[in-house]
This record gives sequence, structure tokens and C-alpha cells, in this order.
Amino acid sequence: MTRYKLTIAYDGTKFHGFQRQNELRTVQGVLEKALSKMTKGQHIDVFGSGRTDAGVHAFGQVIHFDYPGSMPAENMLRAINSLMPLDVLVKAAEIVDENFHARFGVKRKTYQYRVDCGHYTDPFKRFYTGHYPYALSVDKIQTAIKDLEGEHDFTSFAASGGVIENKVRTIYSASCVYNKNNDELVFEFTGNGFLYNMVRILVATLLEIGNGRRDVHDFLRLFEVKDRQEARGTAPASGLYLKEVFYE
Amino acid sequence: MTRYKLTIAYDGTKFHGFQRQNELRTVQGVLEKALSKMTKGQHIDVFGSGRTDAGVHAFGQVIHFDYPGSMPAENMLRAINSLMPLDVLVKAAEIVDENFHARFGVKRKTYQYRVDCGHYTDPFKRFYTGHYPYALSVDKIQTAIKDLEGEHDFTSFAASGGVIENKVRTIYSASCVYNKNNDELVFEFTGNGFLYNMVRILVATLLEIGNGRRDVHDFLRLFEVKDRQEARGTAPASGLYLKEVFYE
Repeated sequence: MTRYKLTIAYDGTKFHGFQRQNELRTVQGVLEKALSKMTKGQHIDVFGSGRTDAGVHAFGQVIHFDYPGSMPAENMLRAINSLMPLDVLVKAAEIVDENFHARFGVKRKTYQYRVDCGHYTDPFKRFYTGHYPYALSVDKIQTAIKDLEGEHDFTSFAASGGVIENKVRTIYSASCVYNKNNDELVFEFTGNGFLYNMVRILVATLLEIGNGRRDVHDFLRLFEVKDRQEARGTAPASGLYLKEVFYE
Repeated sequence: MTRYKLTIAYDGTKFHGFQRQNELRTVQGVLEKALSKMTKGQHIDVFGSGRTDAGVHAFGQVIHFDYPGSMPAENMLRAINSLMPLDVLVKAAEIVDENFHARFGVKRKTYQYRVDCGHYTDPFKRFYTGHYPYALSVDKIQTAIKDLEGEHDFTSFAASGGVIENKVRTIYSASCVYNKNNDELVFEFTGNGFLYNMVRILVATLLEIGNGRRDVHDFLRLFEVKDRQEARGTAPASGLYLKEVFYE
């Protein structure tokens, strides 16, 4: 058995998320199907750094699996890519030791969220951005987002459905850049972990702050109240990208 | 009756081209369906500046139609956009006189063609670029493309299926820029008219020149031989954009 670590990109538009589901097309599903072809029918479990929801994209999702037998990492990369649909790309492959675990070994993750600020939905961005056609103060967003950095209880920003009890997470950096060329806001969040839908809820709240519908420092209040009802919105899946996963 | 000129953008991925076809989803079809809703069932013919094939995109396709009654152009824009699917966007609307004709009045058109030069197909570009993962000399392409400017007989570059006898066209400008950031070549062609598949055949030939498989000045020979068999390739529809249509 050889353990491989793969870094993959995917366009999440046509996937029912990362995680295997009977009958539905998922990223884990197409990977396991490809591996099963390579082993002539033997099932191999694929472990991802975490799930992504339907419509969420990845530039750098990380997975691992144990392959019976061995081949150079470069050959594994080519073999899997030759079996991937065009919306999944293996960008890198390496052989790792048995202590590496794509999920349990995660130290940090970076998510990106793109928001199109144009008046109408851009036909070329509808699957690749969120959309906020209302007035925005980028200054307010850039001030507010700094309140997220550090260790906080993110209970107000966790969608129901999560099973994790401890909702304290550390955000190492959070930023927002406005790109005039394409009229887009690009948010980036790097943290030691993210709760279910957390980035999308944070972005929705940041946009409300930018629009003046919330106080610039409303995050400080939201950390205190620990109430999901107080941070109501969830930005759409289409704007979210798992950008990078970091290990020890 | 009021004649409206509309400038529209569309993502061609999910259309069977511009032109109306029974049962199939086309750009003309969704526009005429929207207008029919606005008139409570009356059919209105939509005239485009020209067809685009299945998978071909537009930033600035131009159409016109005659609407029974009248409303300000801005209201027409909003009304149609509210009835458009998310892959079509009306970008501008104006009222024009009855001498304006979206097809017969065309003076020039600009097409853009995007080629991804990455080794593997990028999941996020598969519907929006052509793909050429082989060695390329941008210098050679930039030299060759200048041979296209001026008045030439483009018989070698017209797909069979066209019905137009006269294959002489004038290219006012043709350029190619390599964008290092996203590893893309962007071609632009402005001319007084383009034959069926002509831009896609020109791009395929330019890429062969860039790869060293044809002489840098092979266009001069191809203009002479007037033989479609000599310019064999056709770059995929996914990279082609109708960028702008110019009138008097």
C-alpha cells in the first residue's frame, strides 16, 4: 500500500458537493470511481480535507488515499487526470507516509469568496461569484473584517446541521480587496477551521455592513450573542472557493 | 410600432447557437419568447447581426425588433432582462429608426478568441477558452497574424456549409496578446465580415504556425490556393466571443 496526497481543483457547479452520495455526482464519487478503474474494481476510500457543498469550488482541495501497489507520484497524477471529467483537475501528487491524513492533519485553510458588484448578473459569472448589486462601502467592509481576526466563538455564524460542539475558531487573516477591472470584491479568510457555512454567513454579514444595514463593528456583538438568528444571510455557494489547505 | 436596438451578452455554453430552431434552446428563441410574453402572445421577429454557433459566446451581439406600441428604451431593457435566463444579459437598449437593421447595417465586427495554454484543461475555463497545451512561439503568431490584415480571398478559411459566393473580406486589424497571469492567448479580429467558422479556422492555423508546424507566412500561400483542405483545423467554439458590432 502506498499513501498518495493529491491537490485538486474543481468547478463545483455540476457536483452535489464533495462528499460521496449514492447515485449523485460528487467529487469524492468521481475520484473513487477513477481509482476503482485503476484497481480493476477494488474500492479505495478517498479522504478529503473537508467537505464542500454543492456549487462550491476548489483551487486546492487536498485528498489522500491508500493505493495497493506503488507508482511514482507523477504517474499517479497523469493516470487519475486521464480518468477525470473536465471539471476536476489533479494539480499535484505526492507520496506521503502513513501519518499523513488529509482531514485530521489540517493546520489551516484558506477560503476565497468572490462577489460580483455589477447591476445585473453577469452571464459569465453566474456560477463563479456571489452577486451584490447594492450600494457598498469597501472601507466599512475592510474595517469590519479585521474584527474577525483572532480567536472567537463563531456560534452566530454556524449553520444548523453542524454537529460540532466547540464553535471557537481562530482566524489568522481576513481581507477584502475590491477589483475595479471586473467590479468584484474578493474576500480571503485563513483560519484553523471553519464551521458549516461559516464563510458564506460571514460574507453575507460583511455585505450588510458594507451596505450600512449593520454597524461596522457588529461582529463584536454577534460574537457575544451566540445566536445564528442574528446573522441571517448566507451568501450563495457559487462564489466560494477552497483555495488552499495547509499541513504541518 | 417602435424599433429597438439591443446589445446583448450571452454565455453560449447552454445554447444551440443564436438562431431559432424548433424545440432547441437558442438565444433568438429565448428573446422571442420573452417578447411574446410582453405582447401577450404576439410573435415578434428578432434580427441579429449574424448567427453564432452552439457554444460561442457574445459580449456585444446586436439585435433589433419592431415592438407594437412604445416605451422608453430603459424600460424595454429592464422588461426584457426581467424575462431573460441568467445566461443572457441585455446590456444596452435604444430606440432606432426604421432604417436601422441589425444584420444589413453591419459595417464591422470584432471577434475575440481566448486560448488557454496550460498543460491540462483548467476546470474553470473549459467552456470559455480553446486549449492548446503544446509549445508556442508568440512571436511567430504575432508576425503571422499581420498577414491577415487587408483585403483577401478567405476561401481557404470558410467551412463548407456556407452559401456565400464571394469570399473576399477585409480584416482591419488582427492581433494576439499573451497574458502571463492566466497563461492565455487572446486573439482579436476586426473585419467587414466573417465567413462561416472563419475565425475558428484562422485561430487553428495561427496555433499551428506558433507551434512551428507551418511556415510563418503560410497565410500568403493559403490565400492563393483557395482550398479549405489546406487549412484543416477549426478551434473549438468555447473560445470564441462576438465582442462588438459596429454600424454607420
